[in-house]
Amino acid sequence: MANSKYEYVKSFEQPDVLLPNTWIVVRIDGKGFHKLSANYGFIKPNDRRALDLMNAAAVAVMKDLPDLCIAYGVSDEYSFAFHPSCQLFERRSAKLVTTIVSTFTAYYIYLWGTYFPDTPLQLTGLPSFDGRAVMYPNSRIFRDYMSWRQVDCHINNLYNTTFWAMVQQGGMANRDAEQELKGTISSDKNEILFKRFGINYNNEEEIYKKGSVIYRQYQLEDVKAKSDSSIQEETSPLQEATPSRTQQDKMRKLRNKAQVVVDHVDIIKDAFWERRPWILSGKPGKLPVEPK
Amino acid sequence: MANSKYEYVKSFEQPDVLLPNTWIVVRIDGKGFHKLSANYGFIKPNDRRALDLMNAAAVAVMKDLPDLCIAYGVSDEYSFAFHPSCQLFERRSAKLVTTIVSTFTAYYIYLWGTYFPDTPLQLTGLPSFDGRAVMYPNSRIFRDYMSWRQVDCHINNLYNTTFWAMVQQGGMANRDAEQELKGTISSDKNEILFKRFGINYNNEEEIYKKGSVIYRQYQLEDVKAKSDSSIQEETSPLQEATPSRTQQDKMRKLRNKAQVVVDHVDIIKDAFWERRPWILSGKPGKLPVEPK
Amino acid sequence: MANSKYEYVKSFEQPDVLLPNTWIVVRIDGKGFHKLSANYGFIKPNDRRALDLMNAAAVAVMKDLPDLCIAYGVSDEYSFAFHPSCQLFERRSAKLVTTIVSTFTAYYIYLWGTYFPDTPLQLTGLPSFDGRAVMYPNSRIFRDYMSWRQVDCHINNLYNTTFWAMVQQGGMANRDAEQELKGTISSDKNEILFKRFGINYNNEEEIYKKGSVIYRQYQLEDVKAKSDSSIQEETSPLQEATPSRTQQDKMRKLRNKAQVVVDHVDIIKDAFWERRPWILSGKPGKLPVEPK
Amino acid sequence: MANSKYEYVKSFEQPDVLLPNTWIVVRIDGKGFHKLSANYGFIKPNDRRALDLMNAAAVAVMKDLPDLCIAYGVSDEYSFAFHPSCQLFERRSAKLVTTIVSTFTAYYIYLWGTYFPDTPLQLTGLPSFDGRAVMYPNSRIFRDYMSWRQVDCHINNLYNTTFWAMVQQGGMANRDAEQELKGTISSDKNEILFKRFGINYNNEEEIYKKGSVIYRQYQLEDVKAKSDSSIQEETSPLQEATPSRTQQDKMRKLRNKAQVVVDHVDIIKDAFWERRPWILSGKPGKLPVEPK
Repeated sequence: MANSKYEYVKSFEQPDVLLPNTWIVVRIDGKGFHKLSANYGFIKPNDRRALDLMNAAAVAVMKDLPDLCIAYGVSDEYSFAFHPSCQLFERRSAKLVTTIVSTFTAYYIYLWGTYFPDTPLQLTGLPSFDGRAVMYPNSRIFRDYMSWRQVDCHINNLYNTTFWAMVQQGGMANRDAEQELKGTISSDKNEILFKRFGINYNNEEEIYKKGSVIYRQYQLEDVKAKSDSSIQEETSPLQEATPSRTQQDKMRKLRNKAQVVVDHVDIIKDAFWERRPWILSGKPGKLPVEPK
Repeated sequence: MANSKYEYVKSFEQPDVLLPNTWIVVRIDGKGFHKLSANYGFIKPNDRRALDLMNAAAVAVMKDLPDLCIAYGVSDEYSFAFHPSCQLFERRSAKLVTTIVSTFTAYYIYLWGTYFPDTPLQLTGLPSFDGRAVMYPNSRIFRDYMSWRQVDCHINNLYNTTFWAMVQQGGMANRDAEQELKGTISSDKNEILFKRFGINYNNEEEIYKKGSVIYRQYQLEDVKAKSDSSIQEETSPLQEATPSRTQQDKMRKLRNKAQVVVDHVDIIKDAFWERRPWILSGKPGKLPVEPK
Repeated sequence: MANSKYEYVKSFEQPDVLLPNTWIVVRIDGKGFHKLSANYGFIKPNDRRALDLMNAAAVAVMKDLPDLCIAYGVSDEYSFAFHPSCQLFERRSAKLVTTIVSTFTAYYIYLWGTYFPDTPLQLTGLPSFDGRAVMYPNSRIFRDYMSWRQVDCHINNLYNTTFWAMVQQGGMANRDAEQELKGTISSDKNEILFKRFGINYNNEEEIYKKGSVIYRQYQLEDVKAKSDSSIQEETSPLQEATPSRTQQDKMRKLRNKAQVVVDHVDIIKDAFWERRPWILSGKPGKLPVEPK
Repeated sequence: MANSKYEYVKSFEQPDVLLPNTWIVVRIDGKGFHKLSANYGFIKPNDRRALDLMNAAAVAVMKDLPDLCIAYGVSDEYSFAFHPSCQLFERRSAKLVTTIVSTFTAYYIYLWGTYFPDTPLQLTGLPSFDGRAVMYPNSRIFRDYMSWRQVDCHINNLYNTTFWAMVQQGGMANRDAEQELKGTISSDKNEILFKRFGINYNNEEEIYKKGSVIYRQYQLEDVKAKSDSSIQEETSPLQEATPSRTQQDKMRKLRNKAQVVVDHVDIIKDAFWERRPWILSGKPGKLPVEPK
């Protein structure tokens, strides 16, 4: 075959399979969204349309990839998590990352008009995202990763809320507000918001304070009955964690039937995970009983 | 800072910097385009609208990333090549791949309506692409990679042209055509085309036979003057290959001024590369003199 | 400095840091030991001198590297395990592997004369070892790795014991013995040993049947008091698992004081690990009370 | 089979194949040789016995591994180079590195007594080496690597020669000599050596000034006939560079017949490489005609 002369170049493709039995998080980030949000006139500090668009794209990605356990989004970034037992694309890193980045981008562009009906996209300033995959060896560390992002969300949102109140309502110059906030701690910012602008930060919308959590919905577990379910799954042997093909098909069906929900809740404390044990266990729960 | 407690999770991010001084090719492929092309009614064996859309998206990617030397596309795949001296994103693999995949996807979705005005995209069947980066240690091997893709284009297009002639014009069942073509060589297919359907394969459009090459246009070199320029660049020491910041800025400007062109020509023989030495050298040529 | 012109070549050194918080096993294997054991007249099926030499070299490696938790040896291979919290050489793979391989080789060559006083080493047939590092994300999987090696030891030793009995005591040709053993299961081999040669496999020496386990000795724990300590450590957060510098120094001292022992016991069942919780926890136990 | 339950752990072994068609350099370094050289009373600034031992071990490694093209040693480090066409151990990094490190260590320990007949090795201070593999994409960069090491040799040896002359012959305290040398350039050190101690650095032994180069000896080429042979090999296509099995066998035989020589010559300038084209080409030359 004429092609064989050149086919040796395939030998330069190097494997990039991720370590088995680890959590895989693909985090994507908007490219140049600082400039982009200015171009398209995003509202500061939070543009609800932009967040709803991010969430809509992420929900669509979750539906397309039943292997995804959970996703967490804040601002122009989204983290998608595959369970340690995931075998999708033989766990090839580039395949997993590019599939998520491309699918997310496709939905984001396609759905733009739904959320920004009056602000059409322009060819010279299209939104795009980069991404990478990171492995976390067990659930405790994976949860610490998720906590890290949510704490980050809180810190940034409190800062931005205060900053833009000072600028938009207080009439300060950006630089002056920045200067005054330098070195302040949370309580300082809360006080500025409340004393100067009558804003009680606690009353801000949950989506801004907590970010967005996306997962499949099954029947919630009774917390009291469970003791420490959240941290037990990684001790089960791999054979158990790698189900048979039949089991995988069954689980895939259950996942497809489950509703994908967007929540704005605390994911740092144990309660969230204990009530939804299917996220860390990787095994679908029971479908919720439909109200008659 | 409250966040520091969780920040240790950053230590799980592993570096993915590609080896310096190697060619980097990012190849992207349409995901599930067999089904997708059926859904949207792509014409067989080649849908000119689909190819033009691929090319339009690739041209836009080339313009966005001046570090790209050349790109080659066929069917639903595109290969984008960075020169060995490229320092973009510190040569981080995931960053390079996801940027290209996401940017390409964004343009593809955005421009869809221009090329398929009567076939709107549907939410449940959006196009997306996966991709990966591969290193090639020198220009000879890089050119062999490009030859591999173009030979592949030829082989597939001759097969598809013959197959669909037998089905569409000859009224054969897909399976029967497949069966008859099994084990045939090029001359057999040429003969089938000519004898049964009066088709001279050589007269088929170049875009189908050769695929699409995209590069920046400078003044073409006189081939006779050059002997083996195409294979000399990798012997120059790295210092030379890694230009100073000022030189880089100057080169970036020259690249931005150059026109990005789409060609359907042979890239296997030396002539293409010898007349366009800037592609393998990584150094911009002279801008073409504008006709008055 | 004159050197700077060439120093750019350092940029080609790529990082090889292993994922944090995973078990690291460095397994080394004798190179060409089939031929080597013939050259130096190793006794079949097991040469006690050769095994004692392997163990002496492994004990010396364990003493040199207090970061090692446990080692397991069988035939001409040895597995050395670093705890997930290990930070030695910043967890660089090549550094960890080559240090163990080279140190082990040095002791093996140096101590050869002690174990083979009548068989001096020859320049043209020096023993050497290769090795590699593998990560295991949690203790369950790490224990499965250890079990894998010990089951392998059992399978090979039962086979070899039977084979060599048939050849050495039964006078069979190697090929015939091989042929007869093809497809047999454990009970078959036990029966051959017992019926033909009066050998009760259970009475064979433990070092041959179980291999050799090397670890630091502290006060054994009362098993009944512990329930499932063996599988809890990986759920503790990394901060806890990565002790302060002072704690590390203290732990290093405790490790240096502990006796390094060689055991030939079951490491598949829980008992071994439950009585020696310091192996999986990575935290030194209490030093044994010396008998007066 | 009983073992299959645990065999899944093999899936955690990740591939580490180095990029095809690149130079592979394995550099090994003595571990803690500062302390070790003090323990065993190495002569300063250069201990000829120690260097001869390093070279003897390296020659033995070169003979054991015909795939090695060239080696360069200085002080307690040695660099071993595999040609881009090398397929040994399928180019697996850990296998290549550990084989060299272990073989080198074995010879070093075994041959110690030959070079240090009056200074026996002690169990608690055995020499050992660590190592790593680095890829260089073409001959120019590989030669720059070799130049880097030889320039380093020169810089260190000039410094050490001057420093120890000041201490040993000049009676200065270590700290004072160190202080005086801070910031000096080559000419300063040459002057100190000559004016104070009557030492002409140029007359020092070549082995100290140039380090040691080891390679296979064939008939030297006439330099004038060759123009730029040294930098052409990497442009040949891989097929050519990857010879058939028969050719490989033939080449292995020629390599085994060639004498392995130790030289102390300049490897920075072109002359060394032009006269010995087989090193960069990876193809054995003609065996030298034996004088009758």
